[in-house]
Amino acid sequence: MAGKADIERVVSDICGEMRARSDRGEVATYIPELARVDVGAFALAIVDTEGNVYAGGDSDTPFSIQSVSKVFTLTLALGKVGDHLWRRVGREPSGSPFNSIVQLEYERGIPRNPFINAGAIAVTDVILSGHRPKEALGEILRFIRFLADDASISIDEAVAASEQRTGFRNVALANYMKSFGVLENPVELTLGVYFHHCAIAMSCRQLAMAGRFLAQNGRHPTTGQQVVLAGRARRINAVMMTCGHYDGSGEFAFRVGLPGKSGVGGGILAVAPGKGSIAVWSPGLDASGNSRLGQIALEMLTKRLGWSIFSA
Amino acid sequence: MAGKADIERVVSDICGEMRARSDRGEVATYIPELARVDVGAFALAIVDTEGNVYAGGDSDTPFSIQSVSKVFTLTLALGKVGDHLWRRVGREPSGSPFNSIVQLEYERGIPRNPFINAGAIAVTDVILSGHRPKEALGEILRFIRFLADDASISIDEAVAASEQRTGFRNVALANYMKSFGVLENPVELTLGVYFHHCAIAMSCRQLAMAGRFLAQNGRHPTTGQQVVLAGRARRINAVMMTCGHYDGSGEFAFRVGLPGKSGVGGGILAVAPGKGSIAVWSPGLDASGNSRLGQIALEMLTKRLGWSIFSA
Amino acid sequence: MAGKADIERVVSDICGEMRARSDRGEVATYIPELARVDVGAFALAIVDTEGNVYAGGDSDTPFSIQSVSKVFTLTLALGKVGDHLWRRVGREPSGSPFNSIVQLEYERGIPRNPFINAGAIAVTDVILSGHRPKEALGEILRFIRFLADDASISIDEAVAASEQRTGFRNVALANYMKSFGVLENPVELTLGVYFHHCAIAMSCRQLAMAGRFLAQNGRHPTTGQQVVLAGRARRINAVMMTCGHYDGSGEFAFRVGLPGKSGVGGGILAVAPGKGSIAVWSPGLDASGNSRLGQIALEMLTKRLGWSIFSA
Amino acid sequence: MAGKADIERVVSDICGEMRARSDRGEVATYIPELARVDVGAFALAIVDTEGNVYAGGDSDTPFSIQSVSKVFTLTLALGKVGDHLWRRVGREPSGSPFNSIVQLEYERGIPRNPFINAGAIAVTDVILSGHRPKEALGEILRFIRFLADDASISIDEAVAASEQRTGFRNVALANYMKSFGVLENPVELTLGVYFHHCAIAMSCRQLAMAGRFLAQNGRHPTTGQQVVLAGRARRINAVMMTCGHYDGSGEFAFRVGLPGKSGVGGGILAVAPGKGSIAVWSPGLDASGNSRLGQIALEMLTKRLGWSIFSA
Repeated sequence: MAGKADIERVVSDICGEMRARSDRGEVATYIPELARVDVGAFALAIVDTEGNVYAGGDSDTPFSIQSVSKVFTLTLALGKVGDHLWRRVGREPSGSPFNSIVQLEYERGIPRNPFINAGAIAVTDVILSGHRPKEALGEILRFIRFLADDASISIDEAVAASEQRTGFRNVALANYMKSFGVLENPVELTLGVYFHHCAIAMSCRQLAMAGRFLAQNGRHPTTGQQVVLAGRARRINAVMMTCGHYDGSGEFAFRVGLPGKSGVGGGILAVAPGKGSIAVWSPGLDASGNSRLGQIALEMLTKRLGWSIFSA
Repeated sequence: MAGKADIERVVSDICGEMRARSDRGEVATYIPELARVDVGAFALAIVDTEGNVYAGGDSDTPFSIQSVSKVFTLTLALGKVGDHLWRRVGREPSGSPFNSIVQLEYERGIPRNPFINAGAIAVTDVILSGHRPKEALGEILRFIRFLADDASISIDEAVAASEQRTGFRNVALANYMKSFGVLENPVELTLGVYFHHCAIAMSCRQLAMAGRFLAQNGRHPTTGQQVVLAGRARRINAVMMTCGHYDGSGEFAFRVGLPGKSGVGGGILAVAPGKGSIAVWSPGLDASGNSRLGQIALEMLTKRLGWSIFSA
Repeated sequence: MAGKADIERVVSDICGEMRARSDRGEVATYIPELARVDVGAFALAIVDTEGNVYAGGDSDTPFSIQSVSKVFTLTLALGKVGDHLWRRVGREPSGSPFNSIVQLEYERGIPRNPFINAGAIAVTDVILSGHRPKEALGEILRFIRFLADDASISIDEAVAASEQRTGFRNVALANYMKSFGVLENPVELTLGVYFHHCAIAMSCRQLAMAGRFLAQNGRHPTTGQQVVLAGRARRINAVMMTCGHYDGSGEFAFRVGLPGKSGVGGGILAVAPGKGSIAVWSPGLDASGNSRLGQIALEMLTKRLGWSIFSA
Repeated sequence: MAGKADIERVVSDICGEMRARSDRGEVATYIPELARVDVGAFALAIVDTEGNVYAGGDSDTPFSIQSVSKVFTLTLALGKVGDHLWRRVGREPSGSPFNSIVQLEYERGIPRNPFINAGAIAVTDVILSGHRPKEALGEILRFIRFLADDASISIDEAVAASEQRTGFRNVALANYMKSFGVLENPVELTLGVYFHHCAIAMSCRQLAMAGRFLAQNGRHPTTGQQVVLAGRARRINAVMMTCGHYDGSGEFAFRVGLPGKSGVGGGILAVAPGKGSIAVWSPGLDASGNSRLGQIALEMLTKRLGWSIFSA
């Protein structure tokens, strides 16, 4: 069993090694605002189940969490409508890129899972129903602040505006689902909320804090409150494992061995049940849109700490 | 932590409940010989990491393991060629049925993973290279007997012959890959070995015994020998988790929360790392070709024993 | 060779027979305004190369020409940018429904041909470039009035508004192409023009008049002007033949044997080069979205007049 | 109207120009025996409806007609089972390469049309039913000899053997259809006949002779016999127009404007109804597997003679 000192050393070693690497992948350019990020940034933060925080690199620098936000919106939507959610979105890996529309045509507008773009838009639509966009967005933000115990977390409006101007493919996905009746609200309202929650900015430290409940059977460690029941936390972890990295999900399971969710901002939230919540950030991406060094760092980490859920 | 008595009670409860259920799914008919199996059969066997065996139902009745054999051939092929194997087959979930050929056309004959039919045929081809079919088959059988500590395990020749007569879709998959140069050996030889290893007959008790090494970081508990290194066992479990149930893999992870591999004979081998190896058998299948009651039984089991790898 | 009296008799026979049939297909419902049309309507009009007009049924009742307008916008766009158009849209049959998006993903946003919805939107975008929407629409309308020698042709604003409110799938197609840079103009402007030119209302008599130039090597018979050069008229006919009826194009060629373009309003414009221009209208559609009785009427017509381009 | 002298001059001009071109495309290599053909060969032959023969280049050199044979097997199969044939094969363009298997999976083993490989194998299976392979092959050969008035036409056994050794993709297609019950006969027998009729060797002169009936409403000009009724000849031409060049069919219609069928041996048979039957041969292929210079030659020919069926 890894002790505090072990974890500290591993975090420090990984941050040192990652700083030095030059094969950092490419920063996402399809959202213009994201392209301005420093590709040399790297951060790693762990919160273990005893509440100890281990942080290295730029772990207090906020970055655009993008699709990592989908873990929190999925949790919220399940809280709101329960298993009815699964009528609007599947829970199978898609075998396709994050922004693929092919599967939607073959499966009558029902997205394969809540972590590809189409699925996350459908989840956002569920959260929006019965609310005004501002309220829905406020609810999402309050939820994340509560999970992370941090009232300073906010939305980067420049990123939201940038995506709103250029997110044609997401507009296509949303209208396509709308044509099948999968979305209830006006497309532009649902997308407005979606673009804004993707534009939430968090540091690795904040992100690791926000993920704690998934490592602790659904319990919020600070308040002792059940964010979700244990069974639901388990199942959210399962969806992260099979669908959290688009068409690189199998690779992430193979190499890292933890449930995880990536975002094109270069962040990854990973969960080691019973051990800790882990956030990593490096803005350069691989071909599937997942942080290149982020995955390598997590692979080193699970190997050295023995935290893979696939080992005894 | 579940004790011996807990496990015994859970096995007994599940066997009782499953016996009584009438929603058993449909027995596979595409291999004529398999259609003759009694849909009412049910078995469950667990071997924990201390070597205790818990068995209920028809746990000594042999059944056709079919695609469950792919766990063992994957292990063998990795032992033979190491990570070079991944040049011939991917490790991503396919999002497609077990016998789909579409993905092969788009990805130039490279199967998505070693657990869909095409991928398993490619793996068999690797094992065959440099050997005669009889030898290759002998090696596979000896390996499984060694894993299970049971020299009585054998091939059901009637099932092998039945599939050889009617397995047109597998012939199509193999020739399709051959056209891209993905198979090295004559198609009929590779398929001969493939149809035969799928026709291996095992009881749940034998199957749970054979799966022990995956629950114990690659170690064969009887001899203490490393069947594979710990890292490789971990990664085989990861592939089972993301790809082990075809286009029902996400569902299995969601509901059961263990790495597992199903076969159209109605068997499932599941692995609880550090806890035990589990085999279940009920011949009725769901639409994805996975044992209907087998999945339900495993869901009950992980819930009651707290064995999901996604919980703390 | 069919004489005037023959053509008159054939038109009259077909109109009589079609009136009596009860298997009329289903009126399109996806544009609410179109669903209000009388399914019992039927019209047939022919203008031969000598300028004789043969008309039967409701041949002076205007209907929504919908995708038949794509013949005219293709002609206009070719006039504007020539063969450069083919960088933005292909000319192969798609083998897919009119509103499919799958092919766009595999072919990086380039629509297969100018007659599926995506392709026609790309063509409209070409016409729009350098103009304001009102001007572009005015140009399209003036062109059709000129071709038909009829200044009374106009747009049904209720239909345009109806589609603008509900055309989510076309919004999806347009945004999807925009994400690949295939559209130059703001999506909503291009779609505005597209929805409006699809909402042009014409009678069969007017439509047959408008199609004359395609039966006469590109020449406008009234003014003697070349609308397009002979080679271009020939090639527009070719695209109508292979792509004019979506995934029913092969069937139309097989049964009717003329270049033709259908619309979901139930109209079809068919061209018998050197013989005449033919318009038919019956609002009930088949599964591919083509007028059911319209196709049957044209099949009878080409058979009885010997007008198939595939016969000696 | 083009006279004899015009046609002679056009044939001679085209042959001269084609000899000189260096952009000849690539000879097919997937059948090893075909790769040995001289890429510099070129031939053109026309038989007009009065029986005049115009020939230039290597018009008496036999080449492997490959998929051009599918026109004759389609005609034979329609003669044998009539329109029942269309239960086993469609008549829509596929929008896919000649050897694609994707469409078969989505459409339950029914090939899109009789001119893609899968469709032609299904047609061959119809001809084989009730016969031994030798008899079926004899019937096909006798039919082609009758059509061409030439008893010397024969099969190139070396090509047939070469394809039988290496035609894995066709073996895949056939077994795939067999798995859906679309083929009645043992796969290897159907494929044996298929590989052999594709290996028929003919010169352009012979091929143009064999195609005469399609230019003359189904009539065999030498005997005056109806090979098929006029309506069927018309419909075979229609299928050639929409499906005769795989995913280059739209392009062929656009540029050439005649029904035509290509083969990977570099031959194309084209039909100008009421005017003549045309065969062209140049072994270099384009990316869709159609003769590069063959298409260019036919485009020049229809333009200069005004033979496009899309012109007045």
